[in-house]
Amino acid sequence: MTPPTMPAFQANESVFTWAAPPLKFGTGALNEIGTDAAAMGVSSCLVITDPGVREHGVPDLVHDLLLKAGIKAEVFDGVAIEPTDRSIATAAEAGRSRAWDCFVAVGGGSTIDTAKAVNLLTTHPGELLDFVTPPIGAGKAPWLPLKPLIAVPTTAGTGSESTTICVVDLLGLRLKAGVSHPRLRPSLAVIDPRTTLSLPPEVTAASGMDVLCHALESYTSVPFDAKRAPDDPQRRPAFCGANPISDIWCETALRLVGANLRAAVFNGRDLRARTAMALASTYAGTGFGNAGTHLPHAASYPVAGAVREYRAAGYPAMPMVPHGQAVSVTAPAVFRWTYPADPARHLRAAELLSGRTFTTTDGPEALPNILSELMSDIGMPSGLHAFGYAEDDTEVLVDGTLKQTRQLAVTPRPVDRNALADIFRRST
Amino acid sequence: MTPPTMPAFQANESVFTWAAPPLKFGTGALNEIGTDAAAMGVSSCLVITDPGVREHGVPDLVHDLLLKAGIKAEVFDGVAIEPTDRSIATAAEAGRSRAWDCFVAVGGGSTIDTAKAVNLLTTHPGELLDFVTPPIGAGKAPWLPLKPLIAVPTTAGTGSESTTICVVDLLGLRLKAGVSHPRLRPSLAVIDPRTTLSLPPEVTAASGMDVLCHALESYTSVPFDAKRAPDDPQRRPAFCGANPISDIWCETALRLVGANLRAAVFNGRDLRARTAMALASTYAGTGFGNAGTHLPHAASYPVAGAVREYRAAGYPAMPMVPHGQAVSVTAPAVFRWTYPADPARHLRAAELLSGRTFTTTDGPEALPNILSELMSDIGMPSGLHAFGYAEDDTEVLVDGTLKQTRQLAVTPRPVDRNALADIFRRST
Ligand SMILES: [Fe+2]
Ligand SMILES: [Fe+2]
Repeated sequence: MTPPTMPAFQANESVFTWAAPPLKFGTGALNEIGTDAAAMGVSSCLVITDPGVREHGVPDLVHDLLLKAGIKAEVFDGVAIEPTDRSIATAAEAGRSRAWDCFVAVGGGSTIDTAKAVNLLTTHPGELLDFVTPPIGAGKAPWLPLKPLIAVPTTAGTGSESTTICVVDLLGLRLKAGVSHPRLRPSLAVIDPRTTLSLPPEVTAASGMDVLCHALESYTSVPFDAKRAPDDPQRRPAFCGANPISDIWCETALRLVGANLRAAVFNGRDLRARTAMALASTYAGTGFGNAGTHLPHAASYPVAGAVREYRAAGYPAMPMVPHGQAVSVTAPAVFRWTYPADPARHLRAAELLSGRTFTTTDGPEALPNILSELMSDIGMPSGLHAFGYAEDDTEVLVDGTLKQTRQLAVTPRPVDRNALADIFRRST
Repeated sequence: MTPPTMPAFQANESVFTWAAPPLKFGTGALNEIGTDAAAMGVSSCLVITDPGVREHGVPDLVHDLLLKAGIKAEVFDGVAIEPTDRSIATAAEAGRSRAWDCFVAVGGGSTIDTAKAVNLLTTHPGELLDFVTPPIGAGKAPWLPLKPLIAVPTTAGTGSESTTICVVDLLGLRLKAGVSHPRLRPSLAVIDPRTTLSLPPEVTAASGMDVLCHALESYTSVPFDAKRAPDDPQRRPAFCGANPISDIWCETALRLVGANLRAAVFNGRDLRARTAMALASTYAGTGFGNAGTHLPHAASYPVAGAVREYRAAGYPAMPMVPHGQAVSVTAPAVFRWTYPADPARHLRAAELLSGRTFTTTDGPEALPNILSELMSDIGMPSGLHAFGYAEDDTEVLVDGTLKQTRQLAVTPRPVDRNALADIFRRST
C-alpha cells in the first residue's frame, strides 16, 4: 500500500501588480485632446461612440479638436448599449475603413470596451473568440503592438478607461465573456467632469452605484496574499485581490461617493459634486482594475442578461437593466453575507460612506443599511421585483452567477448555490 | 498718453496630469524578471548598475534570470554615484555595444537616472545637453520611440523608478540639470523589498528621509489650481503641484514612514519594516513624479555640489553628501517657514508622521519638531556644520538654490535671498 501523496508545497502569493493609464483630469481637460493626440505622433483618429452620447455633442467636439490639431478624424457612432460579438464586428469594420493610427473612445463602458476590441481586431488577424478567456475562447494573448487608444469617459461610472478588460455578449453562446490583456489598457484617459453635466439623474445614480460597488468589492475582495501563488507568474489572474495600493484608492472613492453622489443626482449642474464623482470613478477604476470585483458584479450578468420587459427611465427605450442597477440590486444582501470575512473592513466602508462611526456591536447590518439608505435617497430600483423577477427566477440567476469564475475567485467567502439563492431572495 | 495695458486675462489652471509605470511589488517579485522581460517580447537586455550594488549580487541574479528566460544579457557596472554628463556618455557607450532591445536598471536613483539617459542617447542622435531643460540645454523632446526600461530600485528611496526625470551634473557648466519627458519613464518597476535587506543603517536612514521629503514637499507644494493655466497645454511643467491624486499617495507615504523608518534603520533584517518602506518609497515616487518637490530638494543641489571633505559612513569612501542627507538637512527649517502657506496641511503631516494629534495652537514648530526628533533617532547628521559648511558658505548655497527654477515654481511661498539665507542659518 502506498502512502497518500503529499500535495506539492505551494507558498502563498507574495506579489501584486498594479498599473493605470496616464490621466489628464479637470475642467477643460478635453480641450487639449487634439494637441495630446498630436503629441503622440498620430496623424489620423477614429472617434468611437454611441448615438446617445453623440447627441450631447462631445464626440463631434473631439472630432473638431482633432481636425484643428491637423489630425484626420471621423466619428463612428455605431456602438451598442450592450456590446455583442456582432456589434463589435461592425465597429471593427469601421475601424478598418482606413489605416487609422489612433482610436478615441467617447462614452461609457460599452464604448470604451468596444474601442478596446476594435483596437485588438484591427491590429491582429482572427476573431474576438480567439482572445476570450478559456474555456469559452482560445485565450490567445495579443502578440502585435496595438494602436494608441485615448479614452474619454462621459459617465463617471465605468472605470473601463483604467482597465485592461473588455466585456462582451457572445450571442451564439448566450453568455457574457471577457477579454483581458495589458495591451488593451487605454494609452491615456481624459476625464473632464463637464462631460457628465447633462447626464439624467437615473444615469447619474446608476453610474454612481457602479463606482461604489467597484470600490466596495475591490476593498472586500480576497487579499492578494491570502491566495496560492500562481504556478506560472505570467498567468496571474487579471484580478489580484485586495492589496495595499488598491485599498487606498477604494477608501478614497468610498468617501467621495458617500459625500457627493446625492448632490450629483439631485442637481446635475453641480460641477463640484460632478468633479468629485468623476474623481471617485477614476479612483475606483484604478483600484478595481487590479484588485477585482466579486459577487455584485458576478450577479449583475444574469440579472442584466435575463431581462424581459423592464425599461429604465433615463436610458434608451429598450428592455434592459442598466449595469449600475444590475450590480447594486444585490449589494446590500451580498455585503451582509460577506461581513464575517472581514468585519473591520465592512464597518470601515460603512464609516467612509456615511461619515458616521460604527463598531462591531453594529454588526453585519451596518453596511447594508447605509447602502439601502443611499439607494433609496437617489431613487434606485428597490429590488429584483422592479426588474420583473420573481421567486422562480432564482435558479436561472444562481446558474448565471456561478459561471462568473473571474469574480468568484476573489469573493471573500466560499460561494455555493444556497448562499447565492439566499442573496437573491433577500434582494427581491 | 496711452493708458497702461491690461494684462491679458489668464485663467487659473484647472487640469492636472498623473501617470505612473506599471508596478510589480512584493517579496519574490524579482524572481519573475526574466519572464517579465520575455513577455515584453525583448530578446536582449543590458543590465545597468554600479559597482557597490553589484557586490550585493542583485545585478548578477537579474542577469542569470534573464539568461534562464532565453534573453541575451550583460551587466554594465560603471554607473557613477553622482551621474555626470561624462559618466553618462561612458554608460551610453556601453549601451551601444550591441543592439540591445531593453535596459534593466538595478540600483538607486543614480542608476535608474543613468539608464534613462542611456535609453535616450542610444535611440536618438545628439548629446545629453540637447535634451536638457532650457536655458541650460536645447530642451529638445525625444521624437523617436525609446526601448523598454525595467527599473529595479534597491534603496527604497529614490522614486526615480516612477518618474520621467533624469538628474545629471554637467561638469563643464558646474551645475546640476534635469532632463524630463514622459518617454523616459520606466516601462515597468519591479520592487522586491528583499533587495533592501542588506542596506547599511546610514543608507536606510538617508533614503528614508528622501522618501519622507518627496512626500512632504509634494504634499505642501502649490496646489495645481492655484497656478496660472499654461499658455500651451503641451508645455505643462513636469511638476504640476499638489493635486487630489498626489495627495493620497503622499499622505499614505508619510504614515508609513512615520511608523516604519525607525524599525528599518534599527534592524535592517526586519522584512515587515523594509516592505513598508519600499511601499512608501513607491507611493512617494508616484506622488512626487507629478506633483513636485520644492525647497529641501532645491537646496540639496548646492549642499551636495559644494562639498569639500565630508565623507558619509555607509557610503563609498569619497567626499560626498548623500542625496537624502542633503535634502533633509534643511527640511525642519523649510517647513517652519512654509507653515503659514497651509497650516492645516503642516499639522496633518506632523500627525501622519507621529500618530499624535496637533492643533493650530501647536503652530509652526510642530512639524519641524517631529522631523528633528525622527532625524535624531535614526542618526542623521544634525546640521550643515556636519558637512563642513560654515556661516560664510551661505551665499554660495543661496545662489545654488535660486537656480532650481523647477522646484521654486511649486514652492508654496515666494522665495527671496533673505528667506533662503535664514533657512540655511537655521540649518547649521
Ligand atoms: Fe461595473
Ligand atoms: Fe529625492
